[in-house]
Amino acid sequence: MTTKYPAVRAAAGPAGPLGTPGQPGKSGPPGTATAGDVLADYLQAQAVEFLRSLRLHGESGADADEAGEAARLLRRSARRIAGVLYVYRPLTDTDWTDQLRTELVWLSDVLGREHAYAARLARLRGALHRLSGADAGGGNGGCPTVGAARAGALLERRLTLARTRAHSAALQALGTSRFHAVADAAALLASEVPLDPGASGLLARQALPRLAEQAHRRLAEAAEALPLAAAGHPYNAEALTHGLAATAGPDGPPAEGRQDAPWHQVRRLVRLRRYAQEVLDEHEQTEVEPSLSVRLLGAGQALDRHRDAAEAAADAAAAARTPRIAPATAYALGVLHADQRHEVEAARFAFGRIWQRVTAGAP
Amino acid sequence: MTTKYPAVRAAAGPAGPLGTPGQPGKSGPPGTATAGDVLADYLQAQAVEFLRSLRLHGESGADADEAGEAARLLRRSARRIAGVLYVYRPLTDTDWTDQLRTELVWLSDVLGREHAYAARLARLRGALHRLSGADAGGGNGGCPTVGAARAGALLERRLTLARTRAHSAALQALGTSRFHAVADAAALLASEVPLDPGASGLLARQALPRLAEQAHRRLAEAAEALPLAAAGHPYNAEALTHGLAATAGPDGPPAEGRQDAPWHQVRRLVRLRRYAQEVLDEHEQTEVEPSLSVRLLGAGQALDRHRDAAEAAADAAAAARTPRIAPATAYALGVLHADQRHEVEAARFAFGRIWQRVTAGAP
Repeated sequence: MTTKYPAVRAAAGPAGPLGTPGQPGKSGPPGTATAGDVLADYLQAQAVEFLRSLRLHGESGADADEAGEAARLLRRSARRIAGVLYVYRPLTDTDWTDQLRTELVWLSDVLGREHAYAARLARLRGALHRLSGADAGGGNGGCPTVGAARAGALLERRLTLARTRAHSAALQALGTSRFHAVADAAALLASEVPLDPGASGLLARQALPRLAEQAHRRLAEAAEALPLAAAGHPYNAEALTHGLAATAGPDGPPAEGRQDAPWHQVRRLVRLRRYAQEVLDEHEQTEVEPSLSVRLLGAGQALDRHRDAAEAAADAAAAARTPRIAPATAYALGVLHADQRHEVEAARFAFGRIWQRVTAGAP
Repeated sequence: MTTKYPAVRAAAGPAGPLGTPGQPGKSGPPGTATAGDVLADYLQAQAVEFLRSLRLHGESGADADEAGEAARLLRRSARRIAGVLYVYRPLTDTDWTDQLRTELVWLSDVLGREHAYAARLARLRGALHRLSGADAGGGNGGCPTVGAARAGALLERRLTLARTRAHSAALQALGTSRFHAVADAAALLASEVPLDPGASGLLARQALPRLAEQAHRRLAEAAEALPLAAAGHPYNAEALTHGLAATAGPDGPPAEGRQDAPWHQVRRLVRLRRYAQEVLDEHEQTEVEPSLSVRLLGAGQALDRHRDAAEAAADAAAAARTPRIAPATAYALGVLHADQRHEVEAARFAFGRIWQRVTAGAP
């Protein structure tokens, strides 16, 4: 089922979809399909995925790996349904779909936190490992300082606790009536998508590209407002300019957060643009613009890395505010914070390069 | 007098030497001058500069700025005399010049330390300022954290103490018989350069380029042995790979020192190559290869920045080992250390770019 989405196929390997015969959905051949039918096809397929992941999650029992994978797939389809409902909103019954969208975002967030804390701990552990010279050549590296070892243990405690809490919160959420209402809505979506009555009168090849174009424009405007010229200069040291600013509050460094926010917003807009493209590709039963899909995927990955590094840097800073830690531990956390802020800067640099290619090749 | 050295002229502005009429020295027109005469001309001019700076230093009294400037000029000619005696060693009376070279290196080191500590404090102060968001837009940055303020005060105390000690050591050195012997040797050099008897029989246009070429080869071999491919990748995170390695001893991080050493060595070889070129240019009474001189100057500046940042990073790490400091102070020093190691990485990246142009255009 996942092979229906070209962006995924493109990322999976060089064997493109162009060689495989088309598998027309209910919506019929590309030329005559209505916008409503194409959209319904995509959403139904995603709703089926959502329900299947939900079942897998329920059956996974105590197997953490299986449950994790099911939750990942669940979030994957929830994000796609919510995103596509946003981009193609005018074609849907908005009373119903706006609410579903809100609920899917809530669910995706609740189910994603456990994974996010685990990934962040892995990132920080990897960075401490690297900073201890373990990856470097020369034989006798590889042993962290006392401070680095203690910083690692402190982060491990903090993030494991956060992860355990997130796990409980997710389990609790899955037992609520709020969750059951989302599952019911997904079941409805799988059988019949509530559309705007006018959508069945619009040709897909006219209505869908127009809305995808709007999503592209919102993305392009937000991306062009980023300080891309500065970010394109390697080693511009911009990402750390608030590393020691006193405006950082007790629960995190809002100065750095303010600097990062527009990049996070562009990350969300890249995602919406990707999902919008998936619907177009579904309609054409091929990748309309394979290179655009690949670039959007790359842009999204750079901004995922931006967000992950920014959150890891904030965690290191927060851990350093733990009372009564040793100076050596605090020193190691300072090095770690700066290291992750440089990852932030590197991700911005990488995004800038990919974005140049998006604008060079996109409509 | 300084305008006799084309690299200096080239750095000073676009008004090139080509438009000014040649001012032939004792060595006569380029075609027929001997290697000994050209070398003696250059060394005598530098020895005169050295003696003049020495007199300025003696007359400066309590004026720290004047004394500092005189010491800078003194080191400048000392480095040039020592460097040129090294590159063109076979043309000189090595019994005498080898000893002078050793003594000039000692003097340059003793006189340079005070300035080095002052410059390092200025660099670290500037970095703390930048990391407090003071340089960033947005209005409400600019106030350092308590930790950053304390780290700044700690570094100020440490480096001011080191600077004061260096000042005393320099004053003391200027009163020694060892120093007076160097001054006497410079006076001898200003009147007559002890050369190898064979040097007067060699044509400058044959003997000098061959020795400069050797200096170029030593530089090229050392530069090509650097990990330039990795350094050419922006954000490679190599410079910080030993930031938290336990192999760091009590008096500095030798793991980082080991990583930096080959770059410091190339820095010295770039300098020798530049001085070698100055002698050739002196002979031709023009810049033989203006673009090479400019590139060597740029390469040297990148590696100066490399060394300055590496030493500042080591100072931040050393300050963090002060007993009984607050965790917030140690945290700020960790951020500062990582920041300066990224400057190290940025300098390597910059050197790699310039070096590509040196090899593309050099003989």
